[in-house]
Amino acid sequence: MKQIAFIGLGHMGAPMATNLLKAGYLLNVFDLVQSAVDGLVAAGASAARSARDAVQGADVVISMLPASQHVEGLYLDDDGLLAHIAPGTLVLECSTIAPTSARKIHAAARERGLAMLDAPVSGGTAGAAAGTLTFMVGGDAEALEKARPLFEAMGRNIFHAGPDGAGQVAKVCNNQLLAVLMIGTAEAMALGVANGLEAKVLAEIMRRSSGGNWALEVYNPWPGVMENAPASRDYSGGFMAQLMAKDLGLAQEAAQASASSTPMGSLALSLYRLLLKQGYAERDFSVVQKLFDPTQGQ
Amino acid sequence: MKQIAFIGLGHMGAPMATNLLKAGYLLNVFDLVQSAVDGLVAAGASAARSARDAVQGADVVISMLPASQHVEGLYLDDDGLLAHIAPGTLVLECSTIAPTSARKIHAAARERGLAMLDAPVSGGTAGAAAGTLTFMVGGDAEALEKARPLFEAMGRNIFHAGPDGAGQVAKVCNNQLLAVLMIGTAEAMALGVANGLEAKVLAEIMRRSSGGNWALEVYNPWPGVMENAPASRDYSGGFMAQLMAKDLGLAQEAAQASASSTPMGSLALSLYRLLLKQGYAERDFSVVQKLFDPTQGQ
Amino acid sequence: MKQIAFIGLGHMGAPMATNLLKAGYLLNVFDLVQSAVDGLVAAGASAARSARDAVQGADVVISMLPASQHVEGLYLDDDGLLAHIAPGTLVLECSTIAPTSARKIHAAARERGLAMLDAPVSGGTAGAAAGTLTFMVGGDAEALEKARPLFEAMGRNIFHAGPDGAGQVAKVCNNQLLAVLMIGTAEAMALGVANGLEAKVLAEIMRRSSGGNWALEVYNPWPGVMENAPASRDYSGGFMAQLMAKDLGLAQEAAQASASSTPMGSLALSLYRLLLKQGYAERDFSVVQKLFDPTQGQ
Amino acid sequence: MKQIAFIGLGHMGAPMATNLLKAGYLLNVFDLVQSAVDGLVAAGASAARSARDAVQGADVVISMLPASQHVEGLYLDDDGLLAHIAPGTLVLECSTIAPTSARKIHAAARERGLAMLDAPVSGGTAGAAAGTLTFMVGGDAEALEKARPLFEAMGRNIFHAGPDGAGQVAKVCNNQLLAVLMIGTAEAMALGVANGLEAKVLAEIMRRSSGGNWALEVYNPWPGVMENAPASRDYSGGFMAQLMAKDLGLAQEAAQASASSTPMGSLALSLYRLLLKQGYAERDFSVVQKLFDPTQGQ
Repeated sequence: MKQIAFIGLGHMGAPMATNLLKAGYLLNVFDLVQSAVDGLVAAGASAARSARDAVQGADVVISMLPASQHVEGLYLDDDGLLAHIAPGTLVLECSTIAPTSARKIHAAARERGLAMLDAPVSGGTAGAAAGTLTFMVGGDAEALEKARPLFEAMGRNIFHAGPDGAGQVAKVCNNQLLAVLMIGTAEAMALGVANGLEAKVLAEIMRRSSGGNWALEVYNPWPGVMENAPASRDYSGGFMAQLMAKDLGLAQEAAQASASSTPMGSLALSLYRLLLKQGYAERDFSVVQKLFDPTQGQ
Repeated sequence: MKQIAFIGLGHMGAPMATNLLKAGYLLNVFDLVQSAVDGLVAAGASAARSARDAVQGADVVISMLPASQHVEGLYLDDDGLLAHIAPGTLVLECSTIAPTSARKIHAAARERGLAMLDAPVSGGTAGAAAGTLTFMVGGDAEALEKARPLFEAMGRNIFHAGPDGAGQVAKVCNNQLLAVLMIGTAEAMALGVANGLEAKVLAEIMRRSSGGNWALEVYNPWPGVMENAPASRDYSGGFMAQLMAKDLGLAQEAAQASASSTPMGSLALSLYRLLLKQGYAERDFSVVQKLFDPTQGQ
Repeated sequence: MKQIAFIGLGHMGAPMATNLLKAGYLLNVFDLVQSAVDGLVAAGASAARSARDAVQGADVVISMLPASQHVEGLYLDDDGLLAHIAPGTLVLECSTIAPTSARKIHAAARERGLAMLDAPVSGGTAGAAAGTLTFMVGGDAEALEKARPLFEAMGRNIFHAGPDGAGQVAKVCNNQLLAVLMIGTAEAMALGVANGLEAKVLAEIMRRSSGGNWALEVYNPWPGVMENAPASRDYSGGFMAQLMAKDLGLAQEAAQASASSTPMGSLALSLYRLLLKQGYAERDFSVVQKLFDPTQGQ
Repeated sequence: MKQIAFIGLGHMGAPMATNLLKAGYLLNVFDLVQSAVDGLVAAGASAARSARDAVQGADVVISMLPASQHVEGLYLDDDGLLAHIAPGTLVLECSTIAPTSARKIHAAARERGLAMLDAPVSGGTAGAAAGTLTFMVGGDAEALEKARPLFEAMGRNIFHAGPDGAGQVAKVCNNQLLAVLMIGTAEAMALGVANGLEAKVLAEIMRRSSGGNWALEVYNPWPGVMENAPASRDYSGGFMAQLMAKDLGLAQEAAQASASSTPMGSLALSLYRLLLKQGYAERDFSVVQKLFDPTQGQ
């Protein structure tokens, strides 16, 4: 398994593909944006003229696209890509999409004799560049074992979440929880500061107590508490608020599909959408701290 | 500093006092419940006839009572305890109460020439028994240094949160955040299971990803995921839901005092109150998982 | 326009069809449940053997089905009904479905030369029986004028909400607001009673003050306040909680499609889903009052 | 009963006092702001040098102050006003304050042999000027009958809510519900417009359907729907957002006192506090519409 078709070279796809090149794989890449393709060609990939061209002769197809409609369009449209991938090829669909979309593609792939995995990632652009992504994988365990070396070239933690679509479910559950704990942390920080505590002191107390969570460990939303967190560079870089809103929307689709009650998760979505309306769409998602600014509205 | 008056020997106070005895301190104890006093006497304490009697000759006074009104009543009522404690005595008020109540007692103590610390704890009855509590301390740093050996006899982490009342503020911020992340975790677990994931697998993925938090580390709310968590013994033991509702109420008082916006924190309070109305007041607070049972309401 | 095909004879469809018969129209009816068909035949309708059979020779087709998937299935499936309706026929789609589903059917109908209206109703089974439904209509104004006599045979208020799909949008907006004000009313009633007020007195004060709303006018959720409200007959009859949850889900789909923030609406959905999990799915939606019972959890 | 002491001549108190003058009562007025006093003197009142001076010889004392602490300070402080009001005098406390504060003053007044009523109002400054306020009255029915002519000189609807404090409870319940339905209406309007509906059409449909409520009747939050609503004059005038936040805070105190669950009410408070942080404190409370602006964040 050496020849890889890589489709989608955006902020995540490009560094992921670069890490595969570094690991010695041969890549045939495609993206609608020519400059993205050029960057990978400079790093040693060959450029395909189309997605269909990219998959010719490939042992593995990897796709990394923005949303469900793009992925469904790519694989399932009339004369979509699945019809052009040779049986026996392994398809790694790494976009974050609705579990129902993932399952549709799984079913169509299986019909065509293709092994497919839904394998969304977490870790952001920094993790993609460093090759430390987490992969949450849905589909056959056997296919995952075949794909493991590829995942390990791009990431550090590879989880088998369960059958078809399970990777997407795990991703939306995790990201819903992440949004909730980020907002909860921002509220707690603002509440403490508004009542006279120093931000760094409060952050440290909660980090080492039962309020401890990932945001307090590595991603504190209060400016200045952590030098390397997006909060300390005016919320630039990181994971954009609009992408968190997208993932929370996917979580709501999963909730709708299962009649699940998600009071915290849906409140998080509403708050992120308020935030987007205030012009913070492209800031890191920890910018939600601004909603709770204790210097305002006293 | 060897002679300690210990007032309040409930689920938390009794094991805390016991650990002080083990560390070699002399205790004069008082509680309205005679059996609680008897237990400590059996362990080596002497029994006071009243709170006022307990503080005679004490170097340190420690109180551990249920709520603001009890603590204000003890210290501030006409002819309250402060009038009977000798100047120079150290007062360690360890109950979880409103920051405003704590500050009132601080001010009155200072007027009387007493050094006081507000020092609420976290860690629950298990932490109290094991001597591994966390103390969040408000008041003078100098007084804290004097008190440190006592705190260390009862706990493991001792934090100086800031000036008068800061211990209580840190406590309510932490516990509000804890409630939010517990409910967020319960929602995410239910959402994943409702969409076909195995609870243990999902728990492990999120624990090691950006959804990671204290509940996923040591206190998973899904029955069977962690053998030692209250969830795996039908939510018995642990930290009662009604106590979490109490702490969330204190957080709302702090929010009201500072005009803070706490959408997640106040939703958590509303959900805990719904839970109390369903008869779960005395179960561990992770019982909130039951609200989201995916086997119901499909 | 005398010959009507009526498809879907459930709790709403059957009384609507009956009112059309009373108004002198000729009905050819179809439902998968034979007893539902029999009831209408007894009232003067003729029975079709299939939906396709029903629309033969019809001037107007009316459909009243449970949800989007049924309506899309009926009209849009391979060899769906649209292919069998004669050009020039008027299609009145009265089910409550997603606006996007409605627009798909509109587009397909237009391609076939059919005038279609999306015309969901409010007013419940009581309104359907009494012929006092409200119709919220999306589509061409001209088609609405043709359909008006039919709507007036089944309802009282006929609103032209706007172009294709607008009827469904108006319906989900209205029902989301209805859920919010019902829960808001239930909370306020419980809060007042818990603080010593008599339910009837409080209900009357708010009804005549700025808290006034439809629930306080005709549908008070507190048992005994209004003799004829579902609350006074243990929440039987009326508009089932599970149908309100369905409509709130449609509202969330509309919010997702437009990136709208709906904190109250999505909280309402979460609360209704909690309620369904507690076994109240088939009670009237005002049963949400039970969540706030002031006699519990004190 | 002709001689009235009127204390507190703010935006509400001044027009209320003016209406009493118009009705022929003799007023002795006091306010800390001299210009406020001057205005009433110009209208025929006499100016007292202090609150204590104002109540000398009065048959009735009326107070209209900003918040609980002012009212408690006025009546209950050491040497407070209650000690200087002659037994038999009727005290009408019209401020909006915590029910617990009202009950404290009731108890102290009763001890002094004074008949007191808590009688908060709704209707805003416009209602105060027009003499169309609503009074929600707590206390003895007999005292209310004595006071009725005075209330009727200032208002239109006079409700007996129940015993001591019941007026305040009714007020906070009503205003919590008002906040919920205003936000619910704003969400529904934005959701409809974002999905293609015209604001006026949607407003009219919901007003006449089951979403109907006071905001849709007389106070639509969408600019331009109602010519005379604050929304149509950039949310100037009306009932300030910060006052709604205050009332929602009082509702939370009542919820805390009774362990009531108020998910919608507490979310409303959080949203209003977010709004205050964005600089809208002094706009009419229907300005909450701005949070949901469908032209932003798409």
